[in-house]
Amino acid sequence: MLFPGLKKVMAMPETAVILAAGLGTRMGNRPKGLIRVAGREILYRTIVLLKRKGVERFIIVTNEHYEALYREFIERHGFTAELVINPEPEKGNGHSLHLARGTVSGKFVLVMSDHVYSEAFIERAAKGNGLIADRRPRWVDVSEATKVKVRNNRVERIGKNLRKWDAVDTGFFVLDDGIFNVTEELEREKKGDYSLSEVVERAKLPVTFVDGLGWTDVDTPEEIKRARRMLVKTAVKGIGDGFVSRHLNRKISTEISALLVDRVTPNQMTAVAFATGILSALLTLFSLPLAGILYQVSSILDGVDGEIARAQLRTSRLGGYIDSILDRYVDGSFLALLAYSTLEGPLWYLIALLTLLGTVMVSYSTERFKAAFCRDPHREVPELRNLPGKRDERIFLTMLFLLYPAEYMVKSLFLILALLTHIRAALTAYLVSGKVSEPKTI
Amino acid sequence: MLFPGLKKVMAMPETAVILAAGLGTRMGNRPKGLIRVAGREILYRTIVLLKRKGVERFIIVTNEHYEALYREFIERHGFTAELVINPEPEKGNGHSLHLARGTVSGKFVLVMSDHVYSEAFIERAAKGNGLIADRRPRWVDVSEATKVKVRNNRVERIGKNLRKWDAVDTGFFVLDDGIFNVTEELEREKKGDYSLSEVVERAKLPVTFVDGLGWTDVDTPEEIKRARRMLVKTAVKGIGDGFVSRHLNRKISTEISALLVDRVTPNQMTAVAFATGILSALLTLFSLPLAGILYQVSSILDGVDGEIARAQLRTSRLGGYIDSILDRYVDGSFLALLAYSTLEGPLWYLIALLTLLGTVMVSYSTERFKAAFCRDPHREVPELRNLPGKRDERIFLTMLFLLYPAEYMVKSLFLILALLTHIRAALTAYLVSGKVSEPKTI
Repeated sequence: MLFPGLKKVMAMPETAVILAAGLGTRMGNRPKGLIRVAGREILYRTIVLLKRKGVERFIIVTNEHYEALYREFIERHGFTAELVINPEPEKGNGHSLHLARGTVSGKFVLVMSDHVYSEAFIERAAKGNGLIADRRPRWVDVSEATKVKVRNNRVERIGKNLRKWDAVDTGFFVLDDGIFNVTEELEREKKGDYSLSEVVERAKLPVTFVDGLGWTDVDTPEEIKRARRMLVKTAVKGIGDGFVSRHLNRKISTEISALLVDRVTPNQMTAVAFATGILSALLTLFSLPLAGILYQVSSILDGVDGEIARAQLRTSRLGGYIDSILDRYVDGSFLALLAYSTLEGPLWYLIALLTLLGTVMVSYSTERFKAAFCRDPHREVPELRNLPGKRDERIFLTMLFLLYPAEYMVKSLFLILALLTHIRAALTAYLVSGKVSEPKTI
Repeated sequence: MLFPGLKKVMAMPETAVILAAGLGTRMGNRPKGLIRVAGREILYRTIVLLKRKGVERFIIVTNEHYEALYREFIERHGFTAELVINPEPEKGNGHSLHLARGTVSGKFVLVMSDHVYSEAFIERAAKGNGLIADRRPRWVDVSEATKVKVRNNRVERIGKNLRKWDAVDTGFFVLDDGIFNVTEELEREKKGDYSLSEVVERAKLPVTFVDGLGWTDVDTPEEIKRARRMLVKTAVKGIGDGFVSRHLNRKISTEISALLVDRVTPNQMTAVAFATGILSALLTLFSLPLAGILYQVSSILDGVDGEIARAQLRTSRLGGYIDSILDRYVDGSFLALLAYSTLEGPLWYLIALLTLLGTVMVSYSTERFKAAFCRDPHREVPELRNLPGKRDERIFLTMLFLLYPAEYMVKSLFLILALLTHIRAALTAYLVSGKVSEPKTI
């Protein structure tokens, strides 16, 4: 590379070493990095999130038994990753790090294959230096965790059974290749059998604190559940959330998401929430209290699709677009049917209400697309230009119908406008969706 | 510059020479480049449009009488422009070009100060080579124009009185500094008194045809009117126009725009169109035919603000945003009042209709901002997060009110929701508008 400085303003590591040689005895001898949490292999998540931070090369140190599985995993996802085989996985994991010494130079990330990290954690940790430690771990069993005693911003002692400690080892490190001088020493002293903790203590690594964010390790089947919950709870976007969302809906929806995140897709949840909302609107014709309660249930369910999508690393702007259109239809239908059923007017009132909804939705369905994609749907979908129902046409039609002012003319007008606008809005959403080809992950 | 290739992929000229030394005798001795057409000096338009195409330096050749005026013009707009003074403006304008010889090198644009160009014309012409000629001039008096006879893609003859000709000279040239060898020759032969046409013919310039686009020259007060009309007619965006807009509304609105473009601002026209629309909605309570006709009038007026903004080079995304919000309110109010007045229900129906409108507008007012600016209003305006009336809050409120299902509860709910949503939508538009600081021109 001629101008490395042009490439990244911040000097982020370009390589990550992943230690995945351990024999997952408590997990039925499956490679822990390939365990699915929230629909994705642990390593898939780590690699994708590190790639977003600029890491380009991945070195996975594993053992002979898991080699084929990891190779298949790498190929299936098209990752740029190399395998390094540790023929003695029963020895301490310090040796695994040592085996990677020929493949890296300069700064690199070192990360454990059985640790699940949230996006916010990786965002902060990748900018750190040395051992990344957490003084307020929220998602790990501290009694089982590796603790760190820090002195002058460096590791003084590290281990599971420290009596006095400052923070917990997150399994995430930002190192440079000087570390291999330390492993070289230990190789000689310990005949290749030493732990990463011994390396860390000997090197007196600097410590960067990243406190209270989402990360955990997975050693037992119970811990998979905890990791899944962590991912969902830390996946709440929340930027547009109101008071009820923050204090009630999210508390319930994240529990539902944690239960379902391994079983359903975001789109399935969007459909369920929409169906519940429309059902609640229809229910206004029979029982207002039940309708209101179901409407609130649909509002809670409405959060689940987004939470699942973020936890599964499957967010899509098209999903957000469709969700937003459907929300407007649920709200519009609920209010229209509520007014119709309570105020006991003729059916034409309902049609008038739905016409008003359709009129705004014609514009909403194109503008919301622009909002999601920063692209003009009229340029992308030329068919939209020939689709009838644009504002100038609707207004002209309205004028024509009102020139002879009889009630049946106005009623016909409403019926025509309702059909015209709702068909146009639906076709718009359909046509623009077809123009979007999004990768399954961001 | 180390890597000129990095700067522009297409080799567009970086300098433009503007001939502005002619004494505008038919225009009351005013410098023609400073005449305002559609609210902007002719040269303001030329310079701004050329800047958008990558031209960075401007050389204005003028005379001693106009020097101070042009200097003030350059300073007022902060243009990067230099003045070259022609002490003998009564001589032919070939000499004016010759005087610029020390200031340019390589490729440059040569353009007349009394020619008004549309954006589409400059877009195409700046990519041309030699003399830019028009085989289908739409906005000039051909009998007065300078004609060109072309042979083998080069100028064979040029002049006002050619009997046989192929195209009209647009006053726009893309030259290189080799042209000064020709002016040098003519300086010697003609003692400095020769026209640009003589230079063009002698040089046998290559010809690029740019046909049928908007450009014209201004020699008399009548021609200012023609130029204004040209700018408005060629300023129609039209990408979202429907059938009625294309075949009726635009024909009328551009005439109105041509009349008003020197007198009103786009914002004033937005206000007039909005007021007309709301008036038409109120008129549904008294006369449906009149209401319908006024609604259609408002639809025509709705095109004027955009046309004027484009003709005045004053388009703003904020203007588009506000316009779009107001359109939804006009349409919503019209339909709501039409339903209320025709279907003869109680006032509560009207409130229900307006509640439905407000509900959608809460979302529309933020999403339409995102669509216009590709920026998330929730990030830009933190106040939005604390403003009540978000969807989760409205749904929760709805559930609470419906738990005790009496008609007055539903009516109160509608009233509260109507107030909440419309206030929130209006505040959203107000707050996000405050975050946008747009230059007066693009």
